Amino acid sequence: MINDLIYLDNIIQRALEEDIGTGDVTTDSIIDLHATGKAVLLAKENMILAGLPLFSMVFTLLDPELLFEYIYQDGATVRAGETICRISGRLAPILKAERTALNFVQRMSGIATLTNDYIERAGRGKVKILDTRKTVPGLRALDKYAVRMGGGFNHRIGLFDGILIKDNHIAAAGSITKAVALAKANSPHTLKVEVEVETLFGVQEALESGADIILLDNMTIDAMKQAVKVINGKALVEVSGGVTLGNIPEIAEIGVDFISVGALTHSAKAVDLSLEIVKQDKV
Amino acid sequence: MINDLIYLDNIIQRALEEDIGTGDVTTDSIIDLHATGKAVLLAKENMILAGLPLFSMVFTLLDPELLFEYIYQDGATVRAGETICRISGRLAPILKAERTALNFVQRMSGIATLTNDYIERAGRGKVKILDTRKTVPGLRALDKYAVRMGGGFNHRIGLFDGILIKDNHIAAAGSITKAVALAKANSPHTLKVEVEVETLFGVQEALESGADIILLDNMTIDAMKQAVKVINGKALVEVSGGVTLGNIPEIAEIGVDFISVGALTHSAKAVDLSLEIVKQDKV
Amino acid sequence: MINDLIYLDNIIQRALEEDIGTGDVTTDSIIDLHATGKAVLLAKENMILAGLPLFSMVFTLLDPELLFEYIYQDGATVRAGETICRISGRLAPILKAERTALNFVQRMSGIATLTNDYIERAGRGKVKILDTRKTVPGLRALDKYAVRMGGGFNHRIGLFDGILIKDNHIAAAGSITKAVALAKANSPHTLKVEVEVETLFGVQEALESGADIILLDNMTIDAMKQAVKVINGKALVEVSGGVTLGNIPEIAEIGVDFISVGALTHSAKAVDLSLEIVKQDKV
Amino acid sequence: MINDLIYLDNIIQRALEEDIGTGDVTTDSIIDLHATGKAVLLAKENMILAGLPLFSMVFTLLDPELLFEYIYQDGATVRAGETICRISGRLAPILKAERTALNFVQRMSGIATLTNDYIERAGRGKVKILDTRKTVPGLRALDKYAVRMGGGFNHRIGLFDGILIKDNHIAAAGSITKAVALAKANSPHTLKVEVEVETLFGVQEALESGADIILLDNMTIDAMKQAVKVINGKALVEVSGGVTLGNIPEIAEIGVDFISVGALTHSAKAVDLSLEIVKQDKV
Amino acid sequence: MINDLIYLDNIIQRALEEDIGTGDVTTDSIIDLHATGKAVLLAKENMILAGLPLFSMVFTLLDPELLFEYIYQDGATVRAGETICRISGRLAPILKAERTALNFVQRMSGIATLTNDYIERAGRGKVKILDTRKTVPGLRALDKYAVRMGGGFNHRIGLFDGILIKDNHIAAAGSITKAVALAKANSPHTLKVEVEVETLFGVQEALESGADIILLDNMTIDAMKQAVKVINGKALVEVSGGVTLGNIPEIAEIGVDFISVGALTHSAKAVDLSLEIVKQDKV
Amino acid sequence: MINDLIYLDNIIQRALEEDIGTGDVTTDSIIDLHATGKAVLLAKENMILAGLPLFSMVFTLLDPELLFEYIYQDGATVRAGETICRISGRLAPILKAERTALNFVQRMSGIATLTNDYIERAGRGKVKILDTRKTVPGLRALDKYAVRMGGGFNHRIGLFDGILIKDNHIAAAGSITKAVALAKANSPHTLKVEVEVETLFGVQEALESGADIILLDNMTIDAMKQAVKVINGKALVEVSGGVTLGNIPEIAEIGVDFISVGALTHSAKAVDLSLEIVKQDKV
Repeated sequence: MINDLIYLDNIIQRALEEDIGTGDVTTDSIIDLHATGKAVLLAKENMILAGLPLFSMVFTLLDPELLFEYIYQDGATVRAGETICRISGRLAPILKAERTALNFVQRMSGIATLTNDYIERAGRGKVKILDTRKTVPGLRALDKYAVRMGGGFNHRIGLFDGILIKDNHIAAAGSITKAVALAKANSPHTLKVEVEVETLFGVQEALESGADIILLDNMTIDAMKQAVKVINGKALVEVSGGVTLGNIPEIAEIGVDFISVGALTHSAKAVDLSLEIVKQDKV
Repeated sequence: MINDLIYLDNIIQRALEEDIGTGDVTTDSIIDLHATGKAVLLAKENMILAGLPLFSMVFTLLDPELLFEYIYQDGATVRAGETICRISGRLAPILKAERTALNFVQRMSGIATLTNDYIERAGRGKVKILDTRKTVPGLRALDKYAVRMGGGFNHRIGLFDGILIKDNHIAAAGSITKAVALAKANSPHTLKVEVEVETLFGVQEALESGADIILLDNMTIDAMKQAVKVINGKALVEVSGGVTLGNIPEIAEIGVDFISVGALTHSAKAVDLSLEIVKQDKV
Repeated sequence: MINDLIYLDNIIQRALEEDIGTGDVTTDSIIDLHATGKAVLLAKENMILAGLPLFSMVFTLLDPELLFEYIYQDGATVRAGETICRISGRLAPILKAERTALNFVQRMSGIATLTNDYIERAGRGKVKILDTRKTVPGLRALDKYAVRMGGGFNHRIGLFDGILIKDNHIAAAGSITKAVALAKANSPHTLKVEVEVETLFGVQEALESGADIILLDNMTIDAMKQAVKVINGKALVEVSGGVTLGNIPEIAEIGVDFISVGALTHSAKAVDLSLEIVKQDKV
Repeated sequence: MINDLIYLDNIIQRALEEDIGTGDVTTDSIIDLHATGKAVLLAKENMILAGLPLFSMVFTLLDPELLFEYIYQDGATVRAGETICRISGRLAPILKAERTALNFVQRMSGIATLTNDYIERAGRGKVKILDTRKTVPGLRALDKYAVRMGGGFNHRIGLFDGILIKDNHIAAAGSITKAVALAKANSPHTLKVEVEVETLFGVQEALESGADIILLDNMTIDAMKQAVKVINGKALVEVSGGVTLGNIPEIAEIGVDFISVGALTHSAKAVDLSLEIVKQDKV
Repeated sequence: MINDLIYLDNIIQRALEEDIGTGDVTTDSIIDLHATGKAVLLAKENMILAGLPLFSMVFTLLDPELLFEYIYQDGATVRAGETICRISGRLAPILKAERTALNFVQRMSGIATLTNDYIERAGRGKVKILDTRKTVPGLRALDKYAVRMGGGFNHRIGLFDGILIKDNHIAAAGSITKAVALAKANSPHTLKVEVEVETLFGVQEALESGADIILLDNMTIDAMKQAVKVINGKALVEVSGGVTLGNIPEIAEIGVDFISVGALTHSAKAVDLSLEIVKQDKV
Repeated sequence: MINDLIYLDNIIQRALEEDIGTGDVTTDSIIDLHATGKAVLLAKENMILAGLPLFSMVFTLLDPELLFEYIYQDGATVRAGETICRISGRLAPILKAERTALNFVQRMSGIATLTNDYIERAGRGKVKILDTRKTVPGLRALDKYAVRMGGGFNHRIGLFDGILIKDNHIAAAGSITKAVALAKANSPHTLKVEVEVETLFGVQEALESGADIILLDNMTIDAMKQAVKVINGKALVEVSGGVTLGNIPEIAEIGVDFISVGALTHSAKAVDLSLEIVKQDKV
C-alpha cells in the first residue's frame, strides 16, 4: 500500500541527495567500485517493524542490482538480536545508502512500536487508537502508515478529507449550530461533520445540530462518562488531549469509539537498528 | 542563517500542500474570507526556542500580508505560559497554516531543548556537544540548525563534507593505515581525516597513520581515559555511542574535544506549544 | 478561494512555457520593449464568468507591473459586448500572455455557463447539481472551481476524500453488505460511505448495510421514484448517468438530493472572449 | 511519436496524483492487494481513436506488470460496441487508474473525431485543416497530436516556431510593410512570415511586403475568392475565423491552402468510452 | 528580453545551490550577518559585456535588498580597468553569490566578445554571423543571447523551430528531392526548409526541389563561389564548417547570406572580470 | 563514479528538452519510425576522453533499446581518426539525441585534454593540479569529473566542503589571526582551514595562526620560493593566479603541493568529435 504512493521516489531521492550531496568522500576514496559483500539489518531492541519497503527503496535507488532477502515484514514483532533482512551486492552503494535507509526505518518503527504500546495499554475493547496531524512536515504519509503498522488507525490525512470544527470555527460562526449548518451546506456531501467540544453543553448542542462525530477535548474522566451517556450512540465519540500511556486504560473503559494521540507521531523515539557488513568479497 | 537556505521555500511548500491538499474543507465552509483577527503563540512548557523563522514563513507563504510581532527569538529560553509571538491579519490563512507551522517549531524546539539538557549535564568544560547524521529524512538542515540553537555544534552535514573512516572501510582497505592513506590520496585536501576506533590498538594505529581526528566508539570510561593519554593532543578526540543524560557528566570530565549524540535529533520529543486566536474582528 | 491554491503558479508557469517556449518570435521582432498601451477583455456572447483570477495571474507572471481594472468578477453574468476588465502597461507581455490567459478563462467560463444552464433547467427545488471526476487531467481544481462559479456543487475532489463503492468493488467483496462493512472498517471515520446501485434490490441492500449515500445509476424515472420512496430520507440520494439538459427537469422533480453530470467538465465548449488592444502609446 | 515526448511522464504523474492524492480510500478498503482480473476498453459511440498510448502509460505508471492487448491503434475508426484493448493483472491499480486514463483518451478521441468531421465536410480537395493555439493549458502536445490522429495538420506549436503578424503588431509597427520588414530582420531565418489581414488592401500590402503566408481573417466568401485571385500562388493562403461544420464546404471550394479551426481543440466533446471489468480472479 | 525567460530563476537557483549547498562555511564562520559594504565589478580586459542581468539576479535571489548601480549595459564595449557596476548592501550574501554570478557573466561576455571578433573580421558586408546548437547543455538560451549581444544572429534555437535536412536524412529518404518533399508535406507550414549540401550537384538538386535555404558545408572557397552563382538569389545561402577567424574574411567576400560558427559557443574563453569589495562598514 | 550522481538524469533530461522541445521537425517528417541503423563516434583530433557515460545516457533516455559497444573508456587517450564507440538501433532517436550527446562529451573531453596538457607541462613531480569553482553554472559535477579524467585533482566542490579565507574575510575579521580563530571556532571540525595570502607577511601570520593550508595568490616566483622556505612543511602550500601553460613548469619546480588553474574549466575548448551514421537498414 505504501509502495503505491507515487511520490515516495521523490521523498527518497531528496533524502539521499541530502546525505550524499556531491559524493561520499570516504567511501569513494577507499572502497573499490567493484567490491561486493553482504550486510544484515539487526534489531537491537524489541520493536514493531515499519518502513522496510522504504529501507529497500533507498538502496535500490542507488543500485538497482542489490539483492534483498526478508526475514520479517512490516507489522511484525521483532525481538532484540534478530535479523530483519539481508542485502547482498556491491559494497559502495550499501555503505552510501546505509544511514539514510536506517533513518527511515528507525523512525517509522519507533512510531509503530509506540502505537502498539498505547494499544496494549488500552486493552482489548472496541476503542480504536488514532493518530493526528502532528507529523513531521513532508513525511505525513510515512508517519501515518507506521501508525497502521503498529495496529492504530488514521484520523483524517489532512485538512481536505475530514471536517473538524474547532473552537475558532465556532467562535467565527457564532455557535456550534451555525458552524455545523455552514459546514453541511458548503462542503462535499461525502464528508462527515466532526465537532470538537470541551463541555457537556457543547456535547448537547453538537448532538442537536446533527454532528456525525463529537470530539471530547481535554475533559475529565467523569465529564467524558456523562458525555457518552448523553450521546448514547447518536454520534460517534472521539477523545483527545492529554492522553498518556498512564491514563489511557481508564479512558478506554469509558466506552468511546476513538482515542487520538498526538504523541504517536510527534514524540516517538527511534528504535535501535544496526546494519552490519557480515562479509566482504575479494575483488 | 537558516533564512539563507535557498530550498527552505520548497520544504515549507511541500509541508503545506501535504496538509491543505485540495483545500481546508472546514475553514472554507465556515470562515468568512475577509474576517480578520489576532493570534498568539504560547509556550505550554519551558523550552529553548528554535524554528520561529519557519513558523512565520509557513503563514507568509499562504498570506504575505499577515503581520508578526516577536517577543522571543530562536535560541531564547522561554518559560511555560509566556507568549512567543503575535500574528494579526486574515483568519482563514492563520487557521489553515496553524498545524503545519506548529509541527515545524514544536519539533525544532524539542531538539534545541534536548540539546541544551545534554550541554547542561556535560558542564562548563571545553567539550563540545555534536549532533550526528541521524536526522529526519529531508529535514537535516532544520534539525542541525535546531542543535545549534540549543547550544550544540554540528558534526559533518553529510557524506560530502567530512571523512569518517569506519570499521567497514577499514576492513575493505585491510588496515587503518591503508584506509587513512587512501583517504588522504583520493579526497579533497580541504577535508580532515577522522577514524572511528573501538580499541586502544586502534587508537595507536590511527594516531600513527596521521589521522586528524580519532573517534572513540562505545568504549568504557577507563579505555577512553587511556586513549586520551595516548593521543595526548596529537589529534582531536571525539566520543560517541551509548551517550545518555545519565553518563555524559562522567564522559565530559575525561577531557575529550567532542561528544556526539544521535538522540539529539532522532529521539527528541516535540515541545508543547499552542496557537490561540485571541480576537476575531467583526467582518 | 482559488487564489489560495499553492500550486496555481506551477500550472500557469507550465502553460506559459508551453506557449512562449524559447520566445515569441513575432512580438520580439516587432514590438518595442518599452511600448505601452491598454487592452480590454470583451465578452462576445452571454456567459457566466469564471477564471478571471487566473487570467490576471498569467499576465502578472510575465510582467508584475501590469495594472488591472475589473468591471466583473467570477460568478457574474456577463452579456455579449460587455467589457470584463481592462489591462494597462507594457504591450509586449500583454501580447505574449494573451492566448494563454484566454485559454484559461474561456474554458472555465464555458464550464460555469454550462453548469448554470443545467441549474436553470433543474429549476428552483432543493436538488444540487454536482460535477464528477471527468475533468481535464491536471486542471481538476480549476474545472471544479468553475462549476462552483456556475452555481453547482463539487462531488468528491478525488479518490481520497470520499468513498464511492461501485460495481467492481461490490463484485470483489461479494455483496453490497460486505463491501460497505469493509469500507466502514478500513477507511477514516471522517468519510461517509456512498454506494452506487442500478436496481431496487441494490437500493434495499445498500440501505440495510448502513450506506450514508445511495447513488442511483442509469435508472429509469420510474425506478428512481420508487427508490426515493424506499429510501425515505434514511440516506442521501444521488442520481447519475445519462443526465442531459433535456431530461434534467423531470429528474429534478423526483425529489433526490443530488444530480451529478459529467458533461459539465468533459464536454463544455469554450465561451467566446476577445482581448483587444484599444490604445498603443507612442514610445 | 507521442511516446517520444520526454515530459509525458510528468503530465501523467501529475494527473494521477491529482486523482489518487493520499490514496483511493474505497479500493484500499475493499479490494485485496493480490486480487487479479481482466478489463476491456469499450467504445460506446463511433469515434476516431486517439490517446491510447497515454491510456496505457497511466496504468503502467501505477503497476508496470499490467499486460495490454490492443485491438485498435490511434487513428483508427472504432464503431460503437467494439473493444479497443484488454488489460489484465492486479485489480487494485486498474481501478485506481481507470478514471485518469479514461479522461485522457476520451478527450483526445473527442478532438480526433471532431477533426475528422471537419475534414469529411471539407471534402477531398487539397485544403488542409489546421488546429490553433486554443488548447487546454498544459496539454497542447496532446491536443495537437489528437488533431493529427483525426487527419488534421498542426499550425505552429507555440509563439516560438512560427511568425504570425496580427493587427496589434501591425499597429505597433505602423504598417504591414514595416512589420514584415522588422520580422524578417530580427527573427531566425528558418521561419516563414505569415500576416493576418482582414481586407483586400491588406492582402495587397502583405503580398508586396514579401509575406510567405497570408491569413484571411473573418472575411466573406466573396472577399476570400478575390483574395485568392490577387495572391495567385505568390504566397500560401490560410483562412480562419468563424469556420463551422456548416460553412466549411463552401470555404474549402475557394481553393485556399489551409483552414484553421479553433473549435477542434477548444470545444470538442469527450467521446463515450467505458472500462469494464470482465473477470475477477479468486485470490 | 533575456529577463522574459520564465525559467531563468530555475537556472540561477540551481547554480546557487550547486555552489552554496548546505552553507558557505567560511563566510558563515567569519562575517557578521549584519555587516554591510560596497563592491564593484571590474573589467580586467577589453570585452563586449553580456549577462549583467543574470549577474544581478544571482545576488538578488540571495538578498532582494541589495542595491545595484549600472555603469554599462549588455552589449556595451568595456575597456580593461573600467567599472561595470556597483553593489551595496549586506556583505555576507555578496560574498556567497560572488563566484556564481561571475561564472555567468564571464562565460557570456566571453561568447559576446568572440562573436564580435568574428564580425569585425567578416567586415561590413551584408553577411550575418550565426551561432549553432553547439552550446553548453542546459544554458542554450544564455549562450544564444550572448551571441546577440556580440552582434551575431541566432540560427534555429532547437530541433523544433527550423528544418535542416542533413546527409543522414537525405540517405534515409533516398534523395534530396524526396527529403524536401517529405519535409514540406509533414511539417508545420510556418517553417522554411533548409538543406545541407557538400557538392555542386547537391546545390543543384536542393534548388530544384524547392529548398528555401541551402547550407554549403565544408566546401572550398571556389566551390562556394560557384554555388552562389548557381543559386543566384533563388534561395538563401548559408556557409558552415571549418570557419575560423583566419578564413572568415575570404568567405565573407563571396556574398553568402549567413556564416554559422560553432566556436562562438563551444570554444569561447571566459573574460577576466573581478568583483572587489571596496568598502566594509563597521557593524 | 559519475554514474552515482542521483541528479544526472535531471541534467540530461533538461538538455534534451532544451534541444528537442516540441519535437524534431526534420527527423519526424523524414525518418521512418521503424528505420534502424548503426552509428560510430569518431575522434577528429587527439584527446583525453571524458563524458562517455553521459553521451550514452542521452541516447538511452530517448530510446532504452539502443545498443552500445565501447572501444574506449573515460580517461583514455584517443587519437584522431579512431572510433570511440558504436551505437545500433532505431535511427530516429539516434538523430534526435546526437547534438545533445555530443555537446556533453565534446566539452568534457576538452576539459580533460586541457588538464592533461597542464599536467604534462608541470612534469612528473609531486605537485597536484587542481581545478577551481570557475565552472559552468549547473554542470560543476561534470566539469570536476572531467578534470579527474584528465589526471587532475578537485579542489573543494563548493562553499560547503572547504574553508578558504580570502582578503574580504580577513578585512572583515580584522586580521588573518582573527579570521582563522573564527573559522576554527564556528565551522565543522572535519574541515581544514585554508588561507589565501599575497605577501610573505601574510604567509607568516597564516602559519602562526594555525592555518592547515596556505594559498599563495598571484605571487612572483621568487616570493613563492621564499614562502615555501618559511612554511617548511608546517602547512600544505597551494599556488593560484596567473598560471598558464607557459609558466607552470617553473612554478612546479618550486616544490609546492598544489597548483590550481581556473582555465581548466572556464576556458577549455570543445574537442572535435563526430557521430556518423555508417549503415541504414531497409525498413
